Amino acid sequence: MDINLLKDLIVPAQTKIAMIILDGLGGLPQEPGGKTELETAYTPNLNALAAQSALGLTIPVAPGITPGSGPGHLAIFGYDPVEHMIGRGALEALGADFELEPEDVAARGNFCSVGEDGVITDRRAGRISTDLCMDLAKLLRTIKVEAAEFFIEPVKEHRFVFVMRAPGLGDALSETDPQKVGVPALTVHSLNRESEQAARNVNLFIEQARSLLRDRHPANMILLRGFAKLPTLPTYPDLFGLRAAAIALSGMYRGVAKLVGMQVLKVDGDMIADEFKTLENNWQDFDFFYLHIKKTDTCGENGDFMGKVHVIEEVDALIPGLMSLQPDVVVISGDHSSPAVLKSHSWHPVPTLLYSNIVRADGIAEFGERACTRGSLGMLPAKDVMLIALANAGRIAKYGA
Amino acid sequence: MDINLLKDLIVPAQTKIAMIILDGLGGLPQEPGGKTELETAYTPNLNALAAQSALGLTIPVAPGITPGSGPGHLAIFGYDPVEHMIGRGALEALGADFELEPEDVAARGNFCSVGEDGVITDRRAGRISTDLCMDLAKLLRTIKVEAAEFFIEPVKEHRFVFVMRAPGLGDALSETDPQKVGVPALTVHSLNRESEQAARNVNLFIEQARSLLRDRHPANMILLRGFAKLPTLPTYPDLFGLRAAAIALSGMYRGVAKLVGMQVLKVDGDMIADEFKTLENNWQDFDFFYLHIKKTDTCGENGDFMGKVHVIEEVDALIPGLMSLQPDVVVISGDHSSPAVLKSHSWHPVPTLLYSNIVRADGIAEFGERACTRGSLGMLPAKDVMLIALANAGRIAKYGA
Repeated sequence: MDINLLKDLIVPAQTKIAMIILDGLGGLPQEPGGKTELETAYTPNLNALAAQSALGLTIPVAPGITPGSGPGHLAIFGYDPVEHMIGRGALEALGADFELEPEDVAARGNFCSVGEDGVITDRRAGRISTDLCMDLAKLLRTIKVEAAEFFIEPVKEHRFVFVMRAPGLGDALSETDPQKVGVPALTVHSLNRESEQAARNVNLFIEQARSLLRDRHPANMILLRGFAKLPTLPTYPDLFGLRAAAIALSGMYRGVAKLVGMQVLKVDGDMIADEFKTLENNWQDFDFFYLHIKKTDTCGENGDFMGKVHVIEEVDALIPGLMSLQPDVVVISGDHSSPAVLKSHSWHPVPTLLYSNIVRADGIAEFGERACTRGSLGMLPAKDVMLIALANAGRIAKYGA
Repeated sequence: MDINLLKDLIVPAQTKIAMIILDGLGGLPQEPGGKTELETAYTPNLNALAAQSALGLTIPVAPGITPGSGPGHLAIFGYDPVEHMIGRGALEALGADFELEPEDVAARGNFCSVGEDGVITDRRAGRISTDLCMDLAKLLRTIKVEAAEFFIEPVKEHRFVFVMRAPGLGDALSETDPQKVGVPALTVHSLNRESEQAARNVNLFIEQARSLLRDRHPANMILLRGFAKLPTLPTYPDLFGLRAAAIALSGMYRGVAKLVGMQVLKVDGDMIADEFKTLENNWQDFDFFYLHIKKTDTCGENGDFMGKVHVIEEVDALIPGLMSLQPDVVVISGDHSSPAVLKSHSWHPVPTLLYSNIVRADGIAEFGERACTRGSLGMLPAKDVMLIALANAGRIAKYGA
């Protein structure tokens, strides 16, 4: 449904929605005919909740398409992930908890190794230590280019975030990383007229970086890619009339939540239980809570099937506490699948549960991929979940007379 | 599918389609884990038909969106309900059985009470009797404005239909109803150039109404809202090549059917059985029959769970008579859900049955929400049902070589 049409239908209500996103929730069995991670996990609380819920499987982007974290999250937040793309540089800046401004152009940076002739010999500079990366970032921060301000945030090992700030810069820029060794780093070209000044600024920055790093082998050059500004999205307060809070332990998810107008809550501690505790402590102050669990995806990407099972069980144990707050609507889903057997994100549809006391419950007392296949939500675009959640929260008026 | 593309594929056939619409059919259980209205009803005939049918659940407008009667009907008739919107005034005029012409601008009218200072004290004029409304409508009919002709049709209590007729009037008009008391009625403003004359006409009409009603407290002023012309829709004969008949006891549904080019049949009596009798009596003369049952929705909106159950049972008993006519295709569905527990229309998907002797029958001998969840039609946009019905009626040619 067109987002402006929807905006006209939104009505206020005294209801609360909790959206629990287990990153990379969907999985696969370890052997044919076996159970997935979610089906293997002992989840008495999720199963009991499933019995009172509508179940289904979400498609984050399109059938067969494996989503990155950006599109996966935008979709489950209710946005069209193809229409609204978060560029790699901007996502990286959000992940580093950098306060990206609307006009900033961000890029993903690598320290790399080059020979005397400028030819790249190692695109990752031998994966230098994060400490060295922090020192070199300080060095890069001394670079001055007249037309713009630059920010450098170390990430991990050879990786850093590059941000360029000046009014009116475009972000249609070619990358400097040739994606292979044996050739020199590329010069940045503007891909449209509006980005010409930005290209000049970046090239001036790189020239200074080359000089500054000359004697710092193996980290004696930089590569930049994925130049991007933040997209402009209608926000949760504007679009849905929701005072929305975000609870996440990783910067990227806090950043995407901030982008859609959620208020990021501080979590004391780094455990999943601490995240649920934060939700409980702030329950009175918001209409909508997004709570992100990272470890399901981390285990999936590491191929750690049983690790992922245990994270799911850890979440299951926290469900009764959540339900004791008497939320009007609960969504439990993922931003994409990350089957341990694939050690990566995947295109597989994502198990999804939607609880409310006016949902048409399927009576299926199990939360798992095959159980969700039998659910009444069917196979649905992830971006539709938010509409159904809002409807169940009594926040969408009748369309037409 | 694009409607013009479809038109090229339509082929003639000697087949008959019956579409039985139980208004607000979809429901909810009265308590968690219980049965819906349709699941509670004793429906041996619908169940037997279901066993030979494909089942599914329709989404009239979009996931989470609660449809009004207009969009709900346009969707099940095969039209995109967002692209083709029937404005409130036009729908009200159809509901009053007013013969709205394509250029007419209609609005929903209220008699209201105002004080000496013109400030509204009651937006509904104390809900005057329908008899008084009829008298006052006669009074309003005496108003003459040079540039247009006006028609006033009493509806019920304080409500009436206002219709303005003149060539070339626009319907982009602001409302006069401020939707609250303590302020005066608003003047109508045109919202585009084409509607400037219409705004002037309405304001002249209202000035005269104010004088005429001066001594008629509590009904001493009028409020107008939802100005709208009829949309222009491709018709059933043009689009689908169908001689289509409509059978409905309420004006609004007859009006929407007329809008899409169906011929409205006169029903002798006001019982559901009389509607089915009308279908039988006209069976030879049409290719398509739309038969509308209002009472399921009325009971749903009144919170009368068992009343809705009994209406469904009343329809069930009439199914053998319908089937004895040997229709080629039968669709049994609703325009939206109206669960008795919500006492209103709702967004819940609508149970749908499609019978033909060449449908891929699911073999599920039950017609209910959960049975339909297991059906092979799956969850589908309501506007697609008509395409599938036409296909089963042998009325759509092969696309492409």
